[in-house]
Amino acid sequence: MILSALLTSVGINLGLCLLFFTLYSILRRQPSNITVYAPRLVAEGKVKEGGQFNLERLLPTAGWVRKAWELSEEEFLSNSGLDAFVFMRMFVFSLKIFTFGGIIGMFVLLPINYLGGQLSDDSDFQHKSLDSFSISNVNNGSNRLWIHFSAAYVFTGVVCYLLYYEYLYITSKRIAFFYSSEPQPHHFTLLVRGIPIPPGSTCTDAVERFFSEYHPSTYLSHSVVRRSNRLQNLITDADKLYKKLINLKQKNDAPKRQRREGCLGLFGRKVDVLDHYERRLGNVEDNVRMEQSSLASMEVPAAFVSFKTRFGAAIALHIQEGVNPTEWITEEAPEPHDVHWPFFTVSFLKKWIGKLVVFVAYSTLTVLFLIPVAIVQGLTHLDQLETLFPFLKGILRLSVVSQVITGYLPSLILQQFLSFVPPIMIMLSSWQGYISWSRIQKSACTKVLLFTIWNVFFANVLSGTALYRVNIFLEPKNIPRVLAEAVPSQASFFIAYVVTSGWTAIASELFQLTTLIYNFLSGTFCSNSDDDFVPPSIPYHSEIPRIRLFGLLGVTYFLLAPLILPFLLIYFCLGYIIFRNQFLKVYVPKFETGGEFWPTVHNSTIFSLVLMHVIAVGIFGLKKLPLAAGLTLPLPILTLLFNEYCQKRFLPIFKQFPVECLIKKDRADENEHNMSEFYEKMANAYNDPALMPIKYSERYDSQRTPLLHSSQER
Amino acid sequence: MILSALLTSVGINLGLCLLFFTLYSILRRQPSNITVYAPRLVAEGKVKEGGQFNLERLLPTAGWVRKAWELSEEEFLSNSGLDAFVFMRMFVFSLKIFTFGGIIGMFVLLPINYLGGQLSDDSDFQHKSLDSFSISNVNNGSNRLWIHFSAAYVFTGVVCYLLYYEYLYITSKRIAFFYSSEPQPHHFTLLVRGIPIPPGSTCTDAVERFFSEYHPSTYLSHSVVRRSNRLQNLITDADKLYKKLINLKQKNDAPKRQRREGCLGLFGRKVDVLDHYERRLGNVEDNVRMEQSSLASMEVPAAFVSFKTRFGAAIALHIQEGVNPTEWITEEAPEPHDVHWPFFTVSFLKKWIGKLVVFVAYSTLTVLFLIPVAIVQGLTHLDQLETLFPFLKGILRLSVVSQVITGYLPSLILQQFLSFVPPIMIMLSSWQGYISWSRIQKSACTKVLLFTIWNVFFANVLSGTALYRVNIFLEPKNIPRVLAEAVPSQASFFIAYVVTSGWTAIASELFQLTTLIYNFLSGTFCSNSDDDFVPPSIPYHSEIPRIRLFGLLGVTYFLLAPLILPFLLIYFCLGYIIFRNQFLKVYVPKFETGGEFWPTVHNSTIFSLVLMHVIAVGIFGLKKLPLAAGLTLPLPILTLLFNEYCQKRFLPIFKQFPVECLIKKDRADENEHNMSEFYEKMANAYNDPALMPIKYSERYDSQRTPLLHSSQER
Repeated sequence: MILSALLTSVGINLGLCLLFFTLYSILRRQPSNITVYAPRLVAEGKVKEGGQFNLERLLPTAGWVRKAWELSEEEFLSNSGLDAFVFMRMFVFSLKIFTFGGIIGMFVLLPINYLGGQLSDDSDFQHKSLDSFSISNVNNGSNRLWIHFSAAYVFTGVVCYLLYYEYLYITSKRIAFFYSSEPQPHHFTLLVRGIPIPPGSTCTDAVERFFSEYHPSTYLSHSVVRRSNRLQNLITDADKLYKKLINLKQKNDAPKRQRREGCLGLFGRKVDVLDHYERRLGNVEDNVRMEQSSLASMEVPAAFVSFKTRFGAAIALHIQEGVNPTEWITEEAPEPHDVHWPFFTVSFLKKWIGKLVVFVAYSTLTVLFLIPVAIVQGLTHLDQLETLFPFLKGILRLSVVSQVITGYLPSLILQQFLSFVPPIMIMLSSWQGYISWSRIQKSACTKVLLFTIWNVFFANVLSGTALYRVNIFLEPKNIPRVLAEAVPSQASFFIAYVVTSGWTAIASELFQLTTLIYNFLSGTFCSNSDDDFVPPSIPYHSEIPRIRLFGLLGVTYFLLAPLILPFLLIYFCLGYIIFRNQFLKVYVPKFETGGEFWPTVHNSTIFSLVLMHVIAVGIFGLKKLPLAAGLTLPLPILTLLFNEYCQKRFLPIFKQFPVECLIKKDRADENEHNMSEFYEKMANAYNDPALMPIKYSERYDSQRTPLLHSSQER
Repeated sequence: MILSALLTSVGINLGLCLLFFTLYSILRRQPSNITVYAPRLVAEGKVKEGGQFNLERLLPTAGWVRKAWELSEEEFLSNSGLDAFVFMRMFVFSLKIFTFGGIIGMFVLLPINYLGGQLSDDSDFQHKSLDSFSISNVNNGSNRLWIHFSAAYVFTGVVCYLLYYEYLYITSKRIAFFYSSEPQPHHFTLLVRGIPIPPGSTCTDAVERFFSEYHPSTYLSHSVVRRSNRLQNLITDADKLYKKLINLKQKNDAPKRQRREGCLGLFGRKVDVLDHYERRLGNVEDNVRMEQSSLASMEVPAAFVSFKTRFGAAIALHIQEGVNPTEWITEEAPEPHDVHWPFFTVSFLKKWIGKLVVFVAYSTLTVLFLIPVAIVQGLTHLDQLETLFPFLKGILRLSVVSQVITGYLPSLILQQFLSFVPPIMIMLSSWQGYISWSRIQKSACTKVLLFTIWNVFFANVLSGTALYRVNIFLEPKNIPRVLAEAVPSQASFFIAYVVTSGWTAIASELFQLTTLIYNFLSGTFCSNSDDDFVPPSIPYHSEIPRIRLFGLLGVTYFLLAPLILPFLLIYFCLGYIIFRNQFLKVYVPKFETGGEFWPTVHNSTIFSLVLMHVIAVGIFGLKKLPLAAGLTLPLPILTLLFNEYCQKRFLPIFKQFPVECLIKKDRADENEHNMSEFYEKMANAYNDPALMPIKYSERYDSQRTPLLHSSQER
């Protein structure tokens, strides 16, 4: 890629971003879009839908930027929770390291690269290849490479220093967050799996007996888990039917309410749809009640066990309970609304096998993902398409069409395939036996991150078959050389990737195109269904990996092609403002892990650093400076040792709260809160929602009168 | 090696063993050897030294075999503790798997190997090469190899089955042992390191405040650790002086008691030695008292903290104490007499760095060990010796001498170097910051095991430089092929190794040649010093690796050269009887880990199995049976999965006792024992022996009168 081409691409994407921003500034103030651009505020009742038309609304303003910027960290934290706070710290941290890296890169490394003569590119400045700005242009054996060498050490030192203090800061926030929290059921509760039920006894009895025996002073209550998949489905059905009925009632459109009974509503005698659905709702409700009554026999050997104090729960959590470690397995309970009820793998062995199967499935998918993509992409060759759809021959021969198809279709197919990845990873993680959405997302986040690094970074760098790429990592000695040859040559591709994929992604995050279209369509064609309105929550498992990939690109290319850094800085600046705005107005936190996503961010940064070092070793080798290559070797080792120390110093606090905190908090609770009231509430907190008595018919009947009344009014 | 040579070697070594046994049968009944062959019985007062000469004593008998054999497992367990029991189970387990393997190997695999014609060895039976009995003799591509393939699966299955039930059995024994134990201080005590001492406060205050605050109901007492290396040395000096004095007193040999004061006792004026030593003892004791009084300032931020219940201690152990995980680090306290006082690495960071340094030192030593050995061995070439010691020229030219020197000296040098390894590993492990002899031995045991496998097994199999061997493991893909080429060719060497090194080692374990000689010399030249008599304890860290190496040889060569198995079976049979005898009569347990050596045995067996599978994959590849090679691949994966399951199922019980056990035991204690009495005892259990007031002079003075009295009687 040459410089002018890059500048063109930057110009186009800058224009696109500006367009998105302007549109956003205008559209966000249209009343019909309020559920798209401020669903959180709507859900919290801070903004009302509707309102009169106003000319001012059509003028773009940047007030939202000021609002998002002005908010202090403390306000943001109390507003959006620690997870969102940690998510934003990821941007702050990236901005810090890339500002430092950018200064060194642009003012020290870039001039040195440009003054080198290895590539002998004699074209004028505008037509210079981007490679002239990369390390490839420095002469072999040149002593100037020692500046790159020092830059690697200095940059690593600064990143590690910042990583350490960031971890420290987030740890302190986590502890402060814990101290300031209200008593919450999940602090006092454990999930116990693998309960051995003696013959002739029930699970409830076994739990009661065991915990009264071994934790007499702290044990409070428990609720046994039941297998409720089928019930869940029935209730979903009932829910849908209920909503349909309410909708039909509101329309009150008598002629349309007739339909035929038979197949697809086309044959058979005509019936009143309202009656028909009412009858079906009644049937489903009967089924639900029958299932619920027979559920006692569907007991599963697992239970949520609540304790009187947080410390009591921690004791039962951290010390193995029974003699057999595969029985009485305890784990922290998630928040009650965060429990993922349907998948409840209970036995130790099943969970273990589940993990294995998922591991195999995940590895296979990750390594071989690009093969089916390539096959499908192969089908988009014009001749293939002509054979498949002969009637299109005329259209396909048009040069515009053919250019669009061959140039755009393959990347569209890749994007489509990639968009399936996060949901698939969520599915895999839920098979692993996690019991809460938060843990499923955390696990899926790591999975997607590794997947992205492999299928975006390594797949682009190491062109060739999947097997070839895997093979490279089976010969550890060759890795630095292979990477050093392959990575720098992809610099211009990744600079363009940051500009096209990164900037656009962040702008469309703000613009929420799909939600906007969906909202427009449903507003036009469907009746408004207020009951359905659920404000979205941020999908950490797809956002974090995407942002970390740009972090990885920045760290690895800092030494090779520092030209990437300014573009990354713009990306992170935009991201900072836009995600702050989104957290305030759009996303509602669905769960609170207390900042447990940070270790993932930390680890991925360490991985990026080590990758940079490995490439540096290879580069210095290729550039005939073996001494520098040798002297770079301690760098990854030191970085890994630093990481090891950080794991020991900080990670334990993300796994468990120490005695000091637990006891202080327990004592504060006793003084501040009415604990007996809280205990009563907690006793029912972990009941499966599917087992609650359902009251759709009753609710429907109670609504019927006012509805009929209002319809008569019209 | 040909068959007749092997038989000769077997004959010679069998003769040696028989000789040792006969000598043992006779010598053990000589009164002067009682401290060599039954020190444990002497220490327990069951056998008295001395006695009259008797002709019967000169007749060899095998009564000891019967006695060692007859003892039931329960009796042995209560007599020698769980560690010795686990050590013996290692033999029982090996006997089980190699009996099964031997039957398959000798009656199925060996005939098949022998009937193959790959090596076309036409010599008669006696002169057959041992390779004709190995897998190398099976024809390439022969379908008979499928029998080897099935044997690998069946053998692995049986070994895993036995491993599982052995682990289960030892786990149950460990729990039963815990239930049956008396209340012991180390069950109730933790070592706390990294105590943060607020300015202006002392360590004692900090500990007292912290534990009364956060463990008010269970905290009992504590004793702060002090740095006592110097004091320890002084006390050792005092001890030596005291013993010398007592010895001198007993001899009461006036003329000899004169020595000169000056350098080396050769110059200066004559003094009475007794007076001289008495004065020195007085001086040393004064120094000790001075050191002890100033030790308050030598407080170290670590303390042994005792709790009222085992459960209380477990709570403080398993839940992180302070907010900073590098402070208030708890670990289980060892038995009071097992504490390794001198080395007390306290801070988290120092311990961590210590571990790193030890890791580097250990890896370097293990990988490069054979280089200095080879250099020293190189010096034993005759011409080298002649240059170094020209005066020996005459003797060296004698053919007998030269044969002995060139044939025997190199292996003697290797043995000498190898004998330094266990003490070096003990030293490395103690640098790692372990605080008890038992943990140091456990860690050294693993180190020696890996060292042995690398420097005996791999060094013999993969001849070449150390770097070449390391290189092989850096190219994972080539490992099976390289091993498959190299391992079978060393079969005859290892068969001979089992016979010479194994059988002799086990026989000399019984015969205790060095102790016997030492005893004879000290009995002849020195006065008998009863005070010094300490019965030995078994050095697990050197014995277990040696025995496991033979296990490794058996498992790896089961498929390749089953001829090794009968010799191994004899080795394990001998070992079983002899070590049982030694545990009953010789070794006194110095500590009790509760069977914590078993996981090491288990892991090394799994390693052997996987090594066998890797070699099998290579062999089937070399023998042109790629399908069999491919179908063998699941075997190591399944074995590792099995191991993973075992780790989850059994290992936790070796790390901590579950709540169930702790509470049951606590309650039993309350009923059965007078706990307040025990608490009082425990309060002083963890005081540094170096800090006890010393009373050598007083003891000496009190002994002086009776001693003088008895000397006057003579």
